[in-house]
Amino acid sequence: MENVIYIVGIGPGEEAYLTGQAKKVLEDCDVIVGYTVYVDLVKAFLPQKEYMATGMTREIERCRLCFSLATSGKKVALVCSGDAGVYGMASPMYEMLSEYEGVELEVVAGITAANSGAAVLGAPLNHDYCVISLSDLLTPWESIEKRLQAAVMGDFAIALYNPSSRRRFDYLKRACDILLANGADRSRACGFVENIGRKGMKATVCSLGELREKEVDMFTTVYIGNSESFIYKDKLITKRGYK
Amino acid sequence: MENVIYIVGIGPGEEAYLTGQAKKVLEDCDVIVGYTVYVDLVKAFLPQKEYMATGMTREIERCRLCFSLATSGKKVALVCSGDAGVYGMASPMYEMLSEYEGVELEVVAGITAANSGAAVLGAPLNHDYCVISLSDLLTPWESIEKRLQAAVMGDFAIALYNPSSRRRFDYLKRACDILLANGADRSRACGFVENIGRKGMKATVCSLGELREKEVDMFTTVYIGNSESFIYKDKLITKRGYK
Repeated sequence: MENVIYIVGIGPGEEAYLTGQAKKVLEDCDVIVGYTVYVDLVKAFLPQKEYMATGMTREIERCRLCFSLATSGKKVALVCSGDAGVYGMASPMYEMLSEYEGVELEVVAGITAANSGAAVLGAPLNHDYCVISLSDLLTPWESIEKRLQAAVMGDFAIALYNPSSRRRFDYLKRACDILLANGADRSRACGFVENIGRKGMKATVCSLGELREKEVDMFTTVYIGNSESFIYKDKLITKRGYK
Repeated sequence: MENVIYIVGIGPGEEAYLTGQAKKVLEDCDVIVGYTVYVDLVKAFLPQKEYMATGMTREIERCRLCFSLATSGKKVALVCSGDAGVYGMASPMYEMLSEYEGVELEVVAGITAANSGAAVLGAPLNHDYCVISLSDLLTPWESIEKRLQAAVMGDFAIALYNPSSRRRFDYLKRACDILLANGADRSRACGFVENIGRKGMKATVCSLGELREKEVDMFTTVYIGNSESFIYKDKLITKRGYK
């Protein structure tokens, strides 16, 4: 019999945002593994489980821990915030899978920040859209720049992950400048959501010109509308195209 | 007091894929409105509610029905498959909102097909990605073509919605040809999932050259990897970039 490791997206963090499937997998597993912050989110509503947490940048170690537990017969759930397949642990787990005999993986989808934040802002991604991370820890900045250019060229609505950090404090400004230099208007409708689905949640709408001057933190998801998006009161709306 | 209309994403359709939040909103509302097929999916697990269904292409009528019910004091939930803010009813509802005094909207996020299908295929969207609909009912084909070109140029992983229909039987082939003409290799790793989370679910991996020859129906979500995506056994994996 194969041992299955479940790679579970928990959404923004609170119990209400998990799917029934994700909840059941977490309840049924022997041990829940994850980044410290996500493990604490799950502990809040499932206190009676066995947990193993590893710190930031310990992703590969965390994956190997899951395989090691599964090989020893444990039923493991690896938790990720949002969706496990969006900048999450699904792909590193699959990249290692060939090294471990008799283990299978199953990804349990969750609501990724692009979509949970979009619900708060109204409907910013209601047509073709791109999801781009501004973190250059694992991606060369040239690739990020190329994707921002392509996103404007294709007139996509855009969700930006990891718009900032202590080390990358000016990355959102750099990203806005690339969009502006490639044809997006300063008046382009934009917005951002801080602490989606958590304490301190806050949504803001603004123009691209204004966005360029904003300071946001790493717990923020940023939205750039396409050329037809508009702001209505405190909402950012990208048209579907109905007449 | 404002009347709130909840615009609820139900995910792929079965009860297990709803969030707790979506489930609670549906249980608490007076009437559930939606496209016939989605209403039937919800009826299967919430049979005791009042439902009002309208047919395909009746989207605007459906929205006005919700506002009319809300104005008369009913607590309304408008259901959409997947996420209500991804090719869903969130934006047409916001576009009409200014016509109705005393009504508020709240979008309840669900898991969109890009992400629920990705979980089945492994990890095809585990880096920057685009979501593109091939339906030209509401979007000029030139815009779709421009977005496909931009998606290859930016080396995004891609999820394609509405890849086919009776009238648009050759659109997936046309899309593949645009990707090939703009620099994607015939060997590019791809895949598709039919009937995500429903009876008859089936996942297939293939090359872009092979995808071009496939016949898929409208209940299929198609994935094109980026230039570094790969197939391992029956899974499609887009690398996150860990060394």
